[in-house]
Amino acid sequence: MSRLFKASGILSFCFFLIPVFVFTQEENQNQDALFIKEIHREALSHGFGYEVLRHITQDVGHRLAGSEGAAAAVEYTKQVMQDEGLEVRLQECEVPRWVRGEPSEVRIVNSEQIGTKLLNSLALGNTISTPKTGLTAPIVEVTSLDEVDKLGSTLQGKIVFYNRPADVTQYRTFNAYGGAVDQRVFGASRAAKYGAIGVIVRSINPALDDIPHTGSCVYTDPTQQIPAIAISTNDAVLLSALNKRETIKINMISHGRMLTPTISYNVIGEIRGSEFPDEIILVGGHLDSWDVGEGAHDDGTGCAHAIDVLHILRKLNYQPKRTIRCVMFMNEENGLKGALAYQEASDANGEFHLAAIESDSGGFTPRGFSCDADSEVFAKYFQKMTQWNNLLEPYYISLEKGGSGADINPLKSQKGMLIGLRPDSQRYFDYHHTSTDTFDKVNRRELELGSAAMASLVFLIDKYGL
Amino acid sequence: MSRLFKASGILSFCFFLIPVFVFTQEENQNQDALFIKEIHREALSHGFGYEVLRHITQDVGHRLAGSEGAAAAVEYTKQVMQDEGLEVRLQECEVPRWVRGEPSEVRIVNSEQIGTKLLNSLALGNTISTPKTGLTAPIVEVTSLDEVDKLGSTLQGKIVFYNRPADVTQYRTFNAYGGAVDQRVFGASRAAKYGAIGVIVRSINPALDDIPHTGSCVYTDPTQQIPAIAISTNDAVLLSALNKRETIKINMISHGRMLTPTISYNVIGEIRGSEFPDEIILVGGHLDSWDVGEGAHDDGTGCAHAIDVLHILRKLNYQPKRTIRCVMFMNEENGLKGALAYQEASDANGEFHLAAIESDSGGFTPRGFSCDADSEVFAKYFQKMTQWNNLLEPYYISLEKGGSGADINPLKSQKGMLIGLRPDSQRYFDYHHTSTDTFDKVNRRELELGSAAMASLVFLIDKYGL
Repeated sequence: MSRLFKASGILSFCFFLIPVFVFTQEENQNQDALFIKEIHREALSHGFGYEVLRHITQDVGHRLAGSEGAAAAVEYTKQVMQDEGLEVRLQECEVPRWVRGEPSEVRIVNSEQIGTKLLNSLALGNTISTPKTGLTAPIVEVTSLDEVDKLGSTLQGKIVFYNRPADVTQYRTFNAYGGAVDQRVFGASRAAKYGAIGVIVRSINPALDDIPHTGSCVYTDPTQQIPAIAISTNDAVLLSALNKRETIKINMISHGRMLTPTISYNVIGEIRGSEFPDEIILVGGHLDSWDVGEGAHDDGTGCAHAIDVLHILRKLNYQPKRTIRCVMFMNEENGLKGALAYQEASDANGEFHLAAIESDSGGFTPRGFSCDADSEVFAKYFQKMTQWNNLLEPYYISLEKGGSGADINPLKSQKGMLIGLRPDSQRYFDYHHTSTDTFDKVNRRELELGSAAMASLVFLIDKYGL
Repeated sequence: MSRLFKASGILSFCFFLIPVFVFTQEENQNQDALFIKEIHREALSHGFGYEVLRHITQDVGHRLAGSEGAAAAVEYTKQVMQDEGLEVRLQECEVPRWVRGEPSEVRIVNSEQIGTKLLNSLALGNTISTPKTGLTAPIVEVTSLDEVDKLGSTLQGKIVFYNRPADVTQYRTFNAYGGAVDQRVFGASRAAKYGAIGVIVRSINPALDDIPHTGSCVYTDPTQQIPAIAISTNDAVLLSALNKRETIKINMISHGRMLTPTISYNVIGEIRGSEFPDEIILVGGHLDSWDVGEGAHDDGTGCAHAIDVLHILRKLNYQPKRTIRCVMFMNEENGLKGALAYQEASDANGEFHLAAIESDSGGFTPRGFSCDADSEVFAKYFQKMTQWNNLLEPYYISLEKGGSGADINPLKSQKGMLIGLRPDSQRYFDYHHTSTDTFDKVNRRELELGSAAMASLVFLIDKYGL
């Protein structure tokens, strides 16, 4: 065989192959596009996820780990998954049990400018109580943990007032939140170190309003615990302005206390894969919420999304090749005990999560997915996923590198892809950890498009692998 | 000179040129990215557009062309533009003056199944009155204008009930709206042709709810006018279900009437360009609204956006090369008389709108711009614009081909680019043309990001032309 012949042989081989390949790929793309369209049609029609959300929020209500609400949510979602024909099990985890008690109070006392004023406040999660009549002391305003370190022992006997705003000018509100939340999480511990008797924290939301936001504070040293209460952003602005002209003294009352831990559960339901049952694709949200409002966007919508994904695929008679598992994690808000129990058991059983997708950023119109993996596998997996961009673009879904979700993050060592649903974030922190995070704040279509986005990605990962 | 020499000469010429060009382009891109970031920071900080919206909606209220509200909105926006230092003028236009009168009524009479029931109704804009006691007749349900043609003279003396839903499964709700709105616009005229005495139209919104939506109906033949009233989607479903088991008779009452036309105004303010004053970049919305609710998303937000664009650029001390003109159009809802007056005057003055950007799709988080132009110029202009994609992507703004806006559409013959802001559309038709389209339905951040998106595009078009 001459070289020329060989070359033309390869050439003609290619001519035969390439068009067939291109055609098949195109055909697949067309089929996939049609199926993703069907997913969206189904999601926007049936109202299933919206009804799940309605029950979790309006009937069950808020559901802090260890509470009656959390137990009711476990029972309800277990039943829903069983009704959906999934293999369902409860996974035990020991969770902290914090109770708020009576509402907190933060009161400006003896101001020369305005006299006495009760502020809009909400005790931070995990906080300890004050004495019944509260603590009364002058405030020292700071804008960072570092500033507390610098002030050091001058804080002895004082109440530290953390007042660094979440930056309203950030496009992504989660970045604004991330840039301020250290004050809420570590503020009490840092101030306690220097003898402060309590902390007041400006609510971690970019808007100026009257709604106080709770959220976890963490006592890094169990021997140095001081009470911590959030005040609304408007009241933080007021307090700061007053404090510039005279030293303001406040009285703060918290009734929060930590009870003994109790047993709760992750709720797990799955469809076993027909070809690769050992490759798990997880969809999840967290079932617990803070103990105010109804935990709608945080994270009732995530739970509704995850259950809705399975419902949509079942309605479309989709038979997965891989195991699709729906997980309602317990105790994301103040301990992550469910997530840790899940990961430990999964590792112990030698499981492999090819992908885990968490929805824990609200039930707003989806804008994309944020992807994270061990650096060795990220590039390969992510490149594969970006081949699906043209299938997702009609729904304005983009893929980007970034964090995934608190509950799935411990699975990173399994070297699959961790993925967070990224809905539009503009309204999220209007409601986050407040009494206003209720069912009526969720738009049905926006919620359903989140389910559809997740179901579309699950379908593609299941069909093609990573 | 040998060919080789020539070629290498060109080559070395390129080597010198390309890096310099790339560097300059990169530097420009960096500067542009920074300025667009500043635009977003400014938009999210100052609250100016939100206050304009508050005034237009809460203080002025609804403002149908020819109404007191419309006149107040003209005065207010003129004042705001003057305060912003723009060259301001009012542009006269003669507008129709329709009044609703007392609320409409649509009542099921004598149903064997449910007896009598008052439905949630709202007369369509431009409709004529019924006699005071209303019209009573059996209904004939149809789902299209074609079906009316087929039924022909059997409709004599009947009330036609248009009941084709806006398709809830469409991702883009404007497509769902577009697929159903012919019933509202032309339903009465078509049915009148065959002797029907009135029409009831299912509200043109995809969701099932109890809120009736108004909007214009057009009498194509002035000698054949019959009254037209919208009912809520839930009531349309009910009416249809009842009508399947017995012929339902309804009584419909409308008090709508058209008065003599009156004079109103477009409000126009501009900054003259320093280098190319004859190239106009228009930003606009329409000042009029339907006569229910507060016309917040339709189109108070568009007016706020347009004024905010000028405010943002002024705050950033931006000196435009081209003329940037802000236009509050009058009478988009039921006549487009303002838009037509504007175009006629513009053509008569030999003006050239290089670009016109209208915001008339709500004040939700922006997702992109939809671009339209005469086919000769579209490709060239659009290609130039897509070079800015990487500057807009950080804000999830994409450019696409499509319609622009009703008020700027008449400018197409000037062969510039017509552009519509495309916010997320999921919630738009929850409020569109209803009593619920009020200020509180607008999220401040979402509104401000719309202003920022428009200001960013205006900046790029002004800096680089098209």
